Amino acid sequence: MGSPVRILIDWGTTNFRAVLVGAGGRSIDRLERASGILSIPPGGFPAAFDGMLAGWREAYPDAPVMMCGMVGSRQGWVETPYVAAPASLEALARGLTPVPDHGNVWIVPGVSCQEPGGIADVMRGEETQIMGASAGEGRELICLPGTHAKWVEIEDRRIVRFATAMTGEVWQVLRRHSILGRLMPEAHSHDAEAFRRGLLRSREEGGLLHHLFGVRTEGLFGRISAEGLSSYLSGLLIGHEIAGLADMGEKRPITIIGARELADIYRLALGIVGFTTRFVEAEEAVVLGLQRIAAVRLGEGA
Amino acid sequence: MGSPVRILIDWGTTNFRAVLVGAGGRSIDRLERASGILSIPPGGFPAAFDGMLAGWREAYPDAPVMMCGMVGSRQGWVETPYVAAPASLEALARGLTPVPDHGNVWIVPGVSCQEPGGIADVMRGEETQIMGASAGEGRELICLPGTHAKWVEIEDRRIVRFATAMTGEVWQVLRRHSILGRLMPEAHSHDAEAFRRGLLRSREEGGLLHHLFGVRTEGLFGRISAEGLSSYLSGLLIGHEIAGLADMGEKRPITIIGARELADIYRLALGIVGFTTRFVEAEEAVVLGLQRIAAVRLGEGA
Repeated sequence: MGSPVRILIDWGTTNFRAVLVGAGGRSIDRLERASGILSIPPGGFPAAFDGMLAGWREAYPDAPVMMCGMVGSRQGWVETPYVAAPASLEALARGLTPVPDHGNVWIVPGVSCQEPGGIADVMRGEETQIMGASAGEGRELICLPGTHAKWVEIEDRRIVRFATAMTGEVWQVLRRHSILGRLMPEAHSHDAEAFRRGLLRSREEGGLLHHLFGVRTEGLFGRISAEGLSSYLSGLLIGHEIAGLADMGEKRPITIIGARELADIYRLALGIVGFTTRFVEAEEAVVLGLQRIAAVRLGEGA
Repeated sequence: MGSPVRILIDWGTTNFRAVLVGAGGRSIDRLERASGILSIPPGGFPAAFDGMLAGWREAYPDAPVMMCGMVGSRQGWVETPYVAAPASLEALARGLTPVPDHGNVWIVPGVSCQEPGGIADVMRGEETQIMGASAGEGRELICLPGTHAKWVEIEDRRIVRFATAMTGEVWQVLRRHSILGRLMPEAHSHDAEAFRRGLLRSREEGGLLHHLFGVRTEGLFGRISAEGLSSYLSGLLIGHEIAGLADMGEKRPITIIGARELADIYRLALGIVGFTTRFVEAEEAVVLGLQRIAAVRLGEGA
């Protein structure tokens, strides 16, 4: 049988988030540190892990520990091989990789997929959120906005295929380092009308590289305020992302997994172009996903 | 009648290039300085101009001086208003703006154009190259590759409409400041096969923001070498530029105006997707354009 208690961890590039859950998935305690994998010195993972979790591990020595995220990357603690799509909950559970010299500590593998032309795409961490957010039956289209946004096609909770768009990173890089950023104030605040205009512009002719130049002329000719330009740029980019990837399936409802603020922007954008959406908060999705993977692994049924 | 001698100048953001031409357009002397408008201190244009051209102006005091480029921008010597497209050779000649306190010194105006939705596009300097490179009759499609590439539709040597794509700048910014650059060596050298693969990739589904992420995975999975990745990125971007803008007209021959090396890359790209091209070297086009504008202004006929 073992303890009903679990330690569930999302260890990403910039943050470490852990939850201690008891019987029935009840949350007993939480822990959050700005100790993402980039902040851990070479060879420093065991000490960092032991330090952050000493209290819980002493109180619940038998509790299995399930981790996901960049901790399983080449720059992380233990590199876990990607599971190739289509990837089911069971395949992820089978792919759980034990951490050496740490009894009962596991890392969820990432998922890779290949386009017909052979070009690969990868995810690490999102697979767990998806397993948590998925309704479990039938076909679903899931969007995870962010620096590298993911669009994922699901069938009966299997990750069938997915594609990444560099939307968030391109937005940051153009704001900070291109001529477009020179017209924008340092701080960004969301301007719904400017965002909407960017989104509608993305649906016109000319392509993204041409539309980008329009960010400059719209600013120079005073048609959009300096404060609105970064929202206009955001609308343009998200609009092009949606045009490229939202039609992976038919026009069915899209599940957005993310932080509330960014998810609201995507919900707005998808609404304008005719999609209905459903929202699942990212942290909630991770915890539920780790619980489901743990349950399969520990033979309790999902 | 006046002197048959002319001083023709392309004064851009980073360079100052002047040609002294005699009767029949014969080049007598040339001058090139890294004294672009960004290097001129506030109020420093008259002194810079007088200093660089003292010899010629003394030898040919009656020679008219015709300038084009960013010298006519808000950051330049005298801001010349844009001529709205459709813009003919005659309209540019009429728009020539005299430089105060410098007898017989003129600046060619830039050209603006408006899309149906009201979004503006602008050029300054390219209009002169176009007047020089245009065959003069019928419809033409001209491409001027670069940091901000221009695609221009011409009819009977009038600039009917045009569009700018931020291709060159996006390429630089992504190389220098995004995660894609981390996989690339500092120096870029053209890799024709990687470029070709990027170009073909641009014609697949998913959109530019998704294709960009493939630059990373193609590198990570070792399918394209580190040395080839910046050419692959270049092919992707130029491919998307062409897809967005090359169909401004029908599939007719495209005139490329530019420096030989970059023009060759565009010629290759356009050839792969089925366009024939004709090349005009940028400097040659500027000189001929300034001569044609001067001829109209001075009543000699183009």
